Amino acid sequence: MDFLHEWLPQRVRFDTGRATAALAEEAASAAIARPMVIATPRGAALARTLTAGLDVAVLHDDVREHVPADVAERARTVAGEHDVDGLICVGGGSATGLAKAVALTTGLPILAVPTTYAGSEATDIWGLTTDGVKRTGVDPQVLPKAVIYDAALTVGLPVGLSTSSGLNALAHAVDALWAPRADPINAVLATEAVRSLAAALPAVAATPDSLPARADAFYGTYLASTAFASAGSGLHHKICHVLGGRYDLPHAATHAVVLPHVLALNAPHAPDAERRLAEAFGAPSASAGLRALYDELDPPRTLRELGLSEAQAVEAAAAVLSVVPESNPAPADLEVLETLLRSAWAGS
Amino acid sequence: MDFLHEWLPQRVRFDTGRATAALAEEAASAAIARPMVIATPRGAALARTLTAGLDVAVLHDDVREHVPADVAERARTVAGEHDVDGLICVGGGSATGLAKAVALTTGLPILAVPTTYAGSEATDIWGLTTDGVKRTGVDPQVLPKAVIYDAALTVGLPVGLSTSSGLNALAHAVDALWAPRADPINAVLATEAVRSLAAALPAVAATPDSLPARADAFYGTYLASTAFASAGSGLHHKICHVLGGRYDLPHAATHAVVLPHVLALNAPHAPDAERRLAEAFGAPSASAGLRALYDELDPPRTLRELGLSEAQAVEAAAAVLSVVPESNPAPADLEVLETLLRSAWAGS
Repeated sequence: MDFLHEWLPQRVRFDTGRATAALAEEAASAAIARPMVIATPRGAALARTLTAGLDVAVLHDDVREHVPADVAERARTVAGEHDVDGLICVGGGSATGLAKAVALTTGLPILAVPTTYAGSEATDIWGLTTDGVKRTGVDPQVLPKAVIYDAALTVGLPVGLSTSSGLNALAHAVDALWAPRADPINAVLATEAVRSLAAALPAVAATPDSLPARADAFYGTYLASTAFASAGSGLHHKICHVLGGRYDLPHAATHAVVLPHVLALNAPHAPDAERRLAEAFGAPSASAGLRALYDELDPPRTLRELGLSEAQAVEAAAAVLSVVPESNPAPADLEVLETLLRSAWAGS
Repeated sequence: MDFLHEWLPQRVRFDTGRATAALAEEAASAAIARPMVIATPRGAALARTLTAGLDVAVLHDDVREHVPADVAERARTVAGEHDVDGLICVGGGSATGLAKAVALTTGLPILAVPTTYAGSEATDIWGLTTDGVKRTGVDPQVLPKAVIYDAALTVGLPVGLSTSSGLNALAHAVDALWAPRADPINAVLATEAVRSLAAALPAVAATPDSLPARADAFYGTYLASTAFASAGSGLHHKICHVLGGRYDLPHAATHAVVLPHVLALNAPHAPDAERRLAEAFGAPSASAGLRALYDELDPPRTLRELGLSEAQAVEAAAAVLSVVPESNPAPADLEVLETLLRSAWAGS
């Protein structure tokens, strides 16, 4: 029962159909009068609409995946030139990530309006990519002061992307149960996230324009990220990070492929996680619950179909071995990891 | 699904048998070098032991129940005279309450080491009593930066006090389910609190020196208070506040008496709360679960045995009527409240 849990300060609003009004209220509450708005070129129109009532200092759409360092530098310069007093990011992980990079060096407060299930808005984790290498770190300054979830903004998110993004969120929650700082409090949040996502994702796939299903998916995403930020990276995230870094695999799809294999490895050694997940899935076992969800959603199941060779998958095991968290419930030596990665490659 | 949830920043540690070391670590983490230590005269010896390794500026034991305004003033003066840079409170609600009163005007950070199940350490609510009238308010400055729960400090808490203090904690959780700012997140925390307290309190009563039972009781207490701080006061707390203010009834016992009656009123109109509580109690219904717990713990069941007359109980209904939260699930007019208070008086 001994643990240390740290609650991070954040306001989170679920306000379906009301993002514009909610954003104005949160900007006032955070005393942000001259925001810099950050969105991808594709998301800029939406960002402009949502912030039309604010005195926007600058709309910045020079946004790219994984936050390249030079992109971050330019955004910081723009923030300085326009004397902004806050950041509003509208979009997925790339827009949020860039806002965090600016907040990291300027201390500017962030308001986040997510439009995917990436979940970065709920964490104090930043990332910056230099020469193809992504560094990540933790800083309280990069945690958004407020997050506004408006399910209406996600009804256009394609089903495939919703599913893979949603399974990425699910992986945050599952992996939190055996991550280094796992504790009873973040376990409760992770369990609630799994319960919510397991119900919401099939509903989103069946009825992509269902606002209640989309709101539930946001809710599960948020709690999953909250649990992940609190508990840290477990074995699943270590594996995906190694695979993503070495072979530039698609982020969300990699998570979807790897998750069942990490669960199969750990569940027999983690009775509390097994019980929580089975209950949250409403299934006889954690693995049966995840299998049923995958059967409904039909995400990618093999590293092979993501373009990896079997040799590449197996050779990643050594890199994973050096970063296996001490907290991992199942023993994980090189042979175990090779077997896991071979299974993930073949989908067996 | 629309709601606004605000997470409050706090570090919480469960460190059975390690309060002294944990306190030193938290003092260092909060950069507190010259703390003022606050405890009742009875708690002063423990406070001295726990802080022996720190450079304590002053140990202040002029502590009284309900934080009288002149007691608060004196404590603030002492803090100023000794140029302290932080507050460490060791004890129950009175010690924590006085630390909050000092923090309210000075902004000094608080580290709390609770020794009861009062739960004040998890909230940003302060209280001050002037001429017998208690004012309360909310201020982020009074939320302790860190809370250290060491179950070993509670093994000497008498069973009767443990039970009534624990049922007070339970009431925080139950009432949170229909309080003004009830939301899915604080409902999850409240549900976990009920689950934990329903198991821990009978275990504490049966084996008062069981460290695991005591740690579970702290855990439930903490989450209950967290949920309460987030959701606000529901009907139960409004009733207890009116009764306590008018008739100076014992705080925890009043909560124990009133809770089943508020639950009986609200549960049929609050299906989500009913389902959560029944599940948390592991009982066929919320009321059946609470009844079974009361049968095990045998707390006071009537306002009569607390010294109230039936006429006093009934006349309080009018005062309660004016403060019934809009969020209350059951209609509550004067007649309903009179019936409720008459039942609580007679224990029927």
